[in-house]
Amino acid sequence: MEKYKICFREETPKYIQIAKNIKRLIDVGEIIDGEKLPPIRKLSVFLGVNNDTIVNVYKKLQGEGYAFLKMGSGTYAKKRDINKKILRDYSNIFKQITKEKYNEYVDFAEENPCAEFFPVNNFKKVINEVLDRDGVDALSYEETLGYRGLRNNISKYFWNEKIDSDRILIVSGAQQGIDIVSKAIVNVNDNIIVEKPTYSGALSIFKWRRANIFEVDMENGGINIENFEKILKKNNIKCFYTMSYFQNPTGLSYSYEKKKKIIELANKYDFYIIEDDYLSEIKYDKNIDYISFKAIDQWDRVIYIKSFSKIFLPGIRIGYLVMPSKIKDHIENSKINTDISTSSLMQRALDLYIKNGYWKNYISEINNIYKRRYEFMVNTLLSGLGNKVQFIRPGGGFSLYLKIEDFIEKNCIDLFYECKENKVLITPGVFFYKNSICGRKYFKIGFSKTDEERIKKGIEIINSILK
Amino acid sequence: MEKYKICFREETPKYIQIAKNIKRLIDVGEIIDGEKLPPIRKLSVFLGVNNDTIVNVYKKLQGEGYAFLKMGSGTYAKKRDINKKILRDYSNIFKQITKEKYNEYVDFAEENPCAEFFPVNNFKKVINEVLDRDGVDALSYEETLGYRGLRNNISKYFWNEKIDSDRILIVSGAQQGIDIVSKAIVNVNDNIIVEKPTYSGALSIFKWRRANIFEVDMENGGINIENFEKILKKNNIKCFYTMSYFQNPTGLSYSYEKKKKIIELANKYDFYIIEDDYLSEIKYDKNIDYISFKAIDQWDRVIYIKSFSKIFLPGIRIGYLVMPSKIKDHIENSKINTDISTSSLMQRALDLYIKNGYWKNYISEINNIYKRRYEFMVNTLLSGLGNKVQFIRPGGGFSLYLKIEDFIEKNCIDLFYECKENKVLITPGVFFYKNSICGRKYFKIGFSKTDEERIKKGIEIINSILK
Repeated sequence: MEKYKICFREETPKYIQIAKNIKRLIDVGEIIDGEKLPPIRKLSVFLGVNNDTIVNVYKKLQGEGYAFLKMGSGTYAKKRDINKKILRDYSNIFKQITKEKYNEYVDFAEENPCAEFFPVNNFKKVINEVLDRDGVDALSYEETLGYRGLRNNISKYFWNEKIDSDRILIVSGAQQGIDIVSKAIVNVNDNIIVEKPTYSGALSIFKWRRANIFEVDMENGGINIENFEKILKKNNIKCFYTMSYFQNPTGLSYSYEKKKKIIELANKYDFYIIEDDYLSEIKYDKNIDYISFKAIDQWDRVIYIKSFSKIFLPGIRIGYLVMPSKIKDHIENSKINTDISTSSLMQRALDLYIKNGYWKNYISEINNIYKRRYEFMVNTLLSGLGNKVQFIRPGGGFSLYLKIEDFIEKNCIDLFYECKENKVLITPGVFFYKNSICGRKYFKIGFSKTDEERIKKGIEIINSILK
Repeated sequence: MEKYKICFREETPKYIQIAKNIKRLIDVGEIIDGEKLPPIRKLSVFLGVNNDTIVNVYKKLQGEGYAFLKMGSGTYAKKRDINKKILRDYSNIFKQITKEKYNEYVDFAEENPCAEFFPVNNFKKVINEVLDRDGVDALSYEETLGYRGLRNNISKYFWNEKIDSDRILIVSGAQQGIDIVSKAIVNVNDNIIVEKPTYSGALSIFKWRRANIFEVDMENGGINIENFEKILKKNNIKCFYTMSYFQNPTGLSYSYEKKKKIIELANKYDFYIIEDDYLSEIKYDKNIDYISFKAIDQWDRVIYIKSFSKIFLPGIRIGYLVMPSKIKDHIENSKINTDISTSSLMQRALDLYIKNGYWKNYISEINNIYKRRYEFMVNTLLSGLGNKVQFIRPGGGFSLYLKIEDFIEKNCIDLFYECKENKVLITPGVFFYKNSICGRKYFKIGFSKTDEERIKKGIEIINSILK
């Protein structure tokens, strides 16, 4: 108890002083993550304050993410994310680099497709066609589910009409998709499982929902099923968040067997699978078949999220969900509460873009371009960094996940800062884990915005830093 | 305790059976809203189950919105919204009426401006201008805050450059604005104050955040300050949600004095004001000055939310926030987690639309159109329904809030269904209150989609139903 002692100063309310002290103890590690805080009565007696003061302290700590409440048990310490500094520095880079300066950088951090390959004229054509055809309707409210034409088209083009268009919900990008789904099905202290490592944007959402997050290691062919099932046996799990193809950041894809097994488990243990299909179209390896979780989802357990931003153009902000019928109304309400509906004009434009065949052409075109770049990247890595990093070849997508060999003492945070000094932008591995102790020997490099010359230059610089 | 008794069936887990029973008791009113549920130990002994079972029961009830936890005190019952049926029926109308059938209806329920007055060609012009000027940039990711040109333009055009453009965040409509702000500042069990009655879309968001909602009566010139201060004195309030002009649904606007007073209270009691400025441009009464809370916000206490959807066209899905500097980062993060950024093309189009003067012209044009309609509506109400309903004249906006005189026995729910039978759509008052017992004698009728002929016809039908 001694560590909880404080000398109160007069000018500040006591509960603030007590909370401040506990936060300090958690930050410096004198109270460890998950440690039970003293019972309200005990601490109030010890500090000579009344019960209400401690109630307020614990409320404040909870509100600030320094503690959580287990009903019938008490209040527990929660370590705050110590990645905050690097996360801030990382996101600030992009704010700080002006358009003019950007060309001096090798940008391995960007994850979106390069705009220069996008046939903007086709897009202009469809926008004008839509405005001429639909007039003011193209700028009015759409029904919540989204523009019917687009939904029908998605059902036909992407699902062979096996998914009813009334179970498709148009959203403003995959990030909104994850947000809407998590608002619909994840409550405070619900248990969810994610891949380890996983997409940081999804982690943030689940943390904001104050869910309890379990991580299961990604391996070849998908997560470790044994560990997955262990967690399922012991905990009531609400959902499992997964990226079936070219998982972010590992680049790994699921085997058919693992997908099947996970769907069986979802049915047995009554949880949902949130499948984030963000990049399956960008596929270089012909041996990889495309079969989504949703396609083999016989028990209607999969919430499928598709982003068009990663493949198409990110400024368009369109994606869609396939909703299980049981929770369809719930997800629809969540969409209404989130932003009522998605931009009508953009939906109609995308609809026509797909109908006119532009979509198909564009995908096949960028696949060719990026395949060459991917191979160049792999070869340059092998020849330039092969003895310093390990990596698997994802066979698709826009990035590679590298492990710094153990004998090299550098971690990804130092590497990030030193690269930045040398005008090379990488993504440190620590972002992809629930706890910041993990991922320190990993980093991700993407090649969507770097031509061959830049790839060469960038790898050389990384090589010299890892020496 | 007797009411908690159950005979357990074998096939279902006990905690589910217990929870089901308690939910039933709450639904039928045998456990009333806010009633304390038995302590865990007491109930477990009474039912002959172990403590963990009851812990699970209370968790389940909390998760489903049937109970809430007060730290250091226990678990309390929460009555679920019994408006669900009518809410469902209400939103289903719009789904059920096909485009062809729509013309047979008098639509007093719609709140958005009529598309027919929108000069779609101007919009087409600016879209093409943007695509020609910016090319593929117009379809790429925008920085989180939004397109710089639009933010500068908003600062200049709407704020005389008194608001720095870095404190402006572009959002996909006001609904998203409220959602983002509430995710940034409202946590589970935080206390917030809303006007009584208030916008149902905001109520939903706050309910989903599981906030504790206090209501304060709307009066002429704004909420009842005395009651407002009483709540502030007794509770730690996080924020106050308000619509400063033509409040939805009452149509009332705030006096300068009340705005000033509320800002002073916000500073004194340390809470934020969420100002939803959704319709202040549509003003018919020249005596109403436009001074937002934000304009007189000397302590940076106001989060200002502007929707362009209500005045402009709803399909465009653009609005903006003005963020207090203290919580700017927090709100920005919330936007990233929500959908990363808003459609780039739409932002650039709106930017140009304002710059080219189209915005100003359009506002003045629709003001003229709607003023005539407003006056026609008021006069038709006075002559046709004057002895059956009371209402105030808002002097702006698209709707009127009517109170059914006490001597008429009909409530708004019956009125809604009977109107629907007769192809007149109204909005029942019950949606605008936290508890469904309120608002039963009120209904809202909007005139944005009804020409004079329809107004006449609709009022006649309502009159015959209220007879």
